[in-house]
Amino acid sequence: MAIEAQTNSSETTGKPIRCKAAICRNPGEALVIEEIEVLPPQAWEVRIKILCTSLCHSDLTFWKMPKPFGLFPTIFGHEAVGVVESVGEHVKEVEKGDTVVPVFLGNCGECKDCKSEKSNSCEKAPMKVNPGMPRDESSRFRDSNGEKINHFLSVSSFCEYTVVDIMNLVKITEPIPVETACLLSCGVSTGVGAVTKIAKVEKGSTVAIFGLGAVGLAVAEGSRLSGASKIIGVDLNPDKFEIAKKFGVTDFVNPKDIGGRPISEVIAKMTEGGADYCFECIGLAPVMQDAFSSCRPGWGKTVILGVEMHGAPISINSSDILKGKSIAGSLFGGIKAKTDIPRLAKMYLDKEIHLDEFITHQVGFQDINTAFDLLIQGKSLRCMIWMDK
Amino acid sequence: MAIEAQTNSSETTGKPIRCKAAICRNPGEALVIEEIEVLPPQAWEVRIKILCTSLCHSDLTFWKMPKPFGLFPTIFGHEAVGVVESVGEHVKEVEKGDTVVPVFLGNCGECKDCKSEKSNSCEKAPMKVNPGMPRDESSRFRDSNGEKINHFLSVSSFCEYTVVDIMNLVKITEPIPVETACLLSCGVSTGVGAVTKIAKVEKGSTVAIFGLGAVGLAVAEGSRLSGASKIIGVDLNPDKFEIAKKFGVTDFVNPKDIGGRPISEVIAKMTEGGADYCFECIGLAPVMQDAFSSCRPGWGKTVILGVEMHGAPISINSSDILKGKSIAGSLFGGIKAKTDIPRLAKMYLDKEIHLDEFITHQVGFQDINTAFDLLIQGKSLRCMIWMDK
Repeated sequence: MAIEAQTNSSETTGKPIRCKAAICRNPGEALVIEEIEVLPPQAWEVRIKILCTSLCHSDLTFWKMPKPFGLFPTIFGHEAVGVVESVGEHVKEVEKGDTVVPVFLGNCGECKDCKSEKSNSCEKAPMKVNPGMPRDESSRFRDSNGEKINHFLSVSSFCEYTVVDIMNLVKITEPIPVETACLLSCGVSTGVGAVTKIAKVEKGSTVAIFGLGAVGLAVAEGSRLSGASKIIGVDLNPDKFEIAKKFGVTDFVNPKDIGGRPISEVIAKMTEGGADYCFECIGLAPVMQDAFSSCRPGWGKTVILGVEMHGAPISINSSDILKGKSIAGSLFGGIKAKTDIPRLAKMYLDKEIHLDEFITHQVGFQDINTAFDLLIQGKSLRCMIWMDK
Repeated sequence: MAIEAQTNSSETTGKPIRCKAAICRNPGEALVIEEIEVLPPQAWEVRIKILCTSLCHSDLTFWKMPKPFGLFPTIFGHEAVGVVESVGEHVKEVEKGDTVVPVFLGNCGECKDCKSEKSNSCEKAPMKVNPGMPRDESSRFRDSNGEKINHFLSVSSFCEYTVVDIMNLVKITEPIPVETACLLSCGVSTGVGAVTKIAKVEKGSTVAIFGLGAVGLAVAEGSRLSGASKIIGVDLNPDKFEIAKKFGVTDFVNPKDIGGRPISEVIAKMTEGGADYCFECIGLAPVMQDAFSSCRPGWGKTVILGVEMHGAPISINSSDILKGKSIAGSLFGGIKAKTDIPRLAKMYLDKEIHLDEFITHQVGFQDINTAFDLLIQGKSLRCMIWMDK
């Protein structure tokens, strides 16, 4: 069936949709559910009905960010799954009714980066804290006074309907549960990707993971999958070790419990000289430096996944790097959305990767602030927010 | 013929040898040729007659280093070629008369690093500013008063005879000129290795080289060999461009001539967004940071070859590294001495790499201080110092 025929048959196609959105009007304030208008998709755009969405640490980072760096009012949320409601002109890749996962990092498929095996950036749709759509920065959201509301990371999933550029959308044809697809939208893919696509951890390697949130645990899951022989989790919260074991973490270090010794010394002792791979999953420059110090001379590689919370630089010991160490960073774990997310979905169906364990809590949309509380308190990995519950 | 029979037939075997050495008694002072005694090799050691030696920038760095960091009196020199005079107990790998190249970075062949394809470190013989031999730190040199003289980087080639551990020695069977073999002992191998073994530059890549000394030009040579499409040389000395062209440098940037713009901006313009690979061949943290800034988001890799002159850390922009950039360092360009140096010698014989052009000056041993002056003034790439001329 032609796309036009399908979309034209919809009662809402081409018209604004009135629906509920969780809006944040000032940095760090609780979200308020308001009725808004979501405009129809323009050319290359897709309007989707969000099924469920989850809260990622990056949402928290931007939620707390003071103006003018933080843009307000905003509809946050960038980890989600939805169903296509209607499509704009030129969109052929998806059609009404398709299950789709929106992603903050575009994948146009045509630029030099998209065509290269070495990059997961996209020249046309880079990660950008953009007040609107990636192509023209205009907003598709209006509040009840007709005022424009800002988008967030080209997704804005804390809303019953949103509009996403086709570059930021992945079609899911694998029969996986929607909440599992949601996890692949950001955090879990980031962790698994960092292991398999950036570090390329080999069988028998030793791994140290700094920060056991969902991304850190996804790194553990990726490391387990790659056959790592020792997976050391580093976290200040002692409760993390129990859950971390489920994802393959074999050893746990709490920096509070090592008697003031440098963490690198402790890890060197546990790994005969340093971990083969270290992953920073928090976003703090001093921890990035600890990770670098903890990797093995000769070939140790440190991968930075965390977005530095204060924009601080990383200071690398220049004689240490000459010993054959390296440090690399990546957004989204090197994942190329349109090819790698379907691949991860298949791996889940084939029971290669565990994903269900990441969902520790579930709430209805009206309780979205509970999801914030749980993540801030370190109680949840992923709290699934259901739009229709 | 058994090694013992050969070595025992020598008149000097087992006895100290009196010969000339260029000794440095205080930081930054001219070397003085003195008569010294070189003791016989102990177990696992080899005494070699130096044929020719050349001066590398690292010699200058340590020559200028104040006490107590700098060790004096010292016999500097670590880039050389020689002939085996006699061998100590257990040495089977070389015998009297063999042409050998000493190296500052050992290669025992048995440790975890030596056995790994990923490392060129050696757990048994790491690079160490050691006052003596790598196994026990004792000296094989005595001055005319019977006082001990320090070794340098396990080589000490500014001497007619020296004693080197078998871990730090490479046998050369390829029929290449001795002065060409000498070049492979450190600087040229470092540059070519950094391209082929650390960066792994692919055909069509863009490369930026910061510092056009012998190491930087060897990076150019390696890049040309790897099929780089654009090789940008960055140096404050405008005279460097003419010679750099011989090694494949296609473009030249003098940071003095860019009107105060950041060098990264200039390189981004020349390479459509940043060089695929940047190499720092000077040893200054701010230049390392410029190199990192000049490499392309998505996949740009910066390789640090220079030993930071003041021990300063490298400061990396944490959001820049998240764009898919990486930074790696290596000593000796990732070269595993015993396997890679013979391979490079063969490449020279096969006319794949140019080496002769690195030798810009030649002096006799008595004029060794001229070699220092030429390098300090930036006039020479390599000044070959002949022991018998």
